[in-house]
Amino acid sequence: MIIVKIGGGSTINIPGVIEDLAALDEPYVVVHGANALRDKLAEDLGQPKQVLTSVKGYASVYSDEKLLDVMLMAYAGLRNKRIVELCQQRGINAVGLSGLDGKVVQGERNKGIRVYQGKKLKIVRDFSGKPHAVNAPLLRLLLDNGYVPVLTVPIIDEFNTAINTENDDVVRVLQQALAADTVINLIEAPGFLEDRDDAASLIKKIPASQLEAREQQVEGRMKRKMLAFRKLFEHGASRVIIADGRGEHPVKDALAGKGTVIE
Amino acid sequence: MIIVKIGGGSTINIPGVIEDLAALDEPYVVVHGANALRDKLAEDLGQPKQVLTSVKGYASVYSDEKLLDVMLMAYAGLRNKRIVELCQQRGINAVGLSGLDGKVVQGERNKGIRVYQGKKLKIVRDFSGKPHAVNAPLLRLLLDNGYVPVLTVPIIDEFNTAINTENDDVVRVLQQALAADTVINLIEAPGFLEDRDDAASLIKKIPASQLEAREQQVEGRMKRKMLAFRKLFEHGASRVIIADGRGEHPVKDALAGKGTVIE
Repeated sequence: MIIVKIGGGSTINIPGVIEDLAALDEPYVVVHGANALRDKLAEDLGQPKQVLTSVKGYASVYSDEKLLDVMLMAYAGLRNKRIVELCQQRGINAVGLSGLDGKVVQGERNKGIRVYQGKKLKIVRDFSGKPHAVNAPLLRLLLDNGYVPVLTVPIIDEFNTAINTENDDVVRVLQQALAADTVINLIEAPGFLEDRDDAASLIKKIPASQLEAREQQVEGRMKRKMLAFRKLFEHGASRVIIADGRGEHPVKDALAGKGTVIE
Repeated sequence: MIIVKIGGGSTINIPGVIEDLAALDEPYVVVHGANALRDKLAEDLGQPKQVLTSVKGYASVYSDEKLLDVMLMAYAGLRNKRIVELCQQRGINAVGLSGLDGKVVQGERNKGIRVYQGKKLKIVRDFSGKPHAVNAPLLRLLLDNGYVPVLTVPIIDEFNTAINTENDDVVRVLQQALAADTVINLIEAPGFLEDRDDAASLIKKIPASQLEAREQQVEGRMKRKMLAFRKLFEHGASRVIIADGRGEHPVKDALAGKGTVIE
């Protein structure tokens, strides 16, 4: 079982990804983002995304009800269904699902983010949270009957409300629930870079045992990613490939070892 | 088996509909529209919908690729997933699907609409068409495992491309494929009116045998609706209820005989 995560950047070669998927022999599940599309749509609708910075210095998108509406349009609507359409054109019988559908990805809502408003400390609660479970029987039902699940955020929280979450965390709970051995993470870079401004600094291999040390060396969003990767190995993944989603054959190249292979 | 069609008008009481559905004992499938939402989104994005008028005088929405994108956002994204969310909050394990997902609603693309451009006759081909088949095994798979399918346009054509279609036609192919005996059609009116500007002119009962005669008396979109209703009876429906979607309990009221009952 392979989990293929398609990043939400605007330069990812989605038709190339789908063409490669059509040639795969192993069963797989797709998880995709749409952040560039979401940001553009939010701008076009005159409600640009707001970023909250917690008192500890972590930045996150403020996911109010309006942003969730925009996410439903961009992720679960336009991007998800155009990917499903491409899949069908390549003979992949895809079924696109948000985490709400059949409660396929269940999470818990964040308790709130502590922010300073002027000099005042305030707790801001939005529609965001962390996934902790997957409706594996629904995914198995689809897979066993020849359908390929194509998943995206939002997910559903403990109040049965739509919430935003990180796709890396969705991949983590999926990997665990489906005992996937390989995770392919397609991004807008050649892989994991030693120096993120230098494409030539690609790290070709990272032993899984070194992930914890790497986690200490990096910052911000990459730190969270490293943690998410480490957890994949704790739950039985044997290979995580971070690869370029912009090439002609992103999945084929990734499986051939291009990019950063963690194992 | 009941098919519940929720109209896409802005005043439909969707939470009330879902509350009623949660109390239903019979299996059911939901089909919903989102035309008011689509039109508003298209306006907000600065690409208002265009209407084509054929040489025969029939009006239809010009469904170009951009309009399909807007439909994917409004129907398959925002409206579909917010309905699924409401369902989950009422204990209904809904799975939202566009016609593309698992090719659940398959159609054929229109050959083109003959329009006058100035004095020149032109054939305009857009992304619209008619549904002719349903992936009944996928719907049965979901229903048999406790999931409620919540369907919406677009559907998938013979080239595996997303196309726009009339929801009444989707209901028609669904009814046939699932051998549904009851169809509830929730609209922004008390039912079928003798005089469409007079809410008091509600026709309470129409014998199915009179549908053909009625079809001759009405015009435009209503003519197409009457034809669609008539076809339901040809394929085994025993009751079609056109009822007000704006009340407190739209489905309960419809099943209690409020609105127009055709049987």
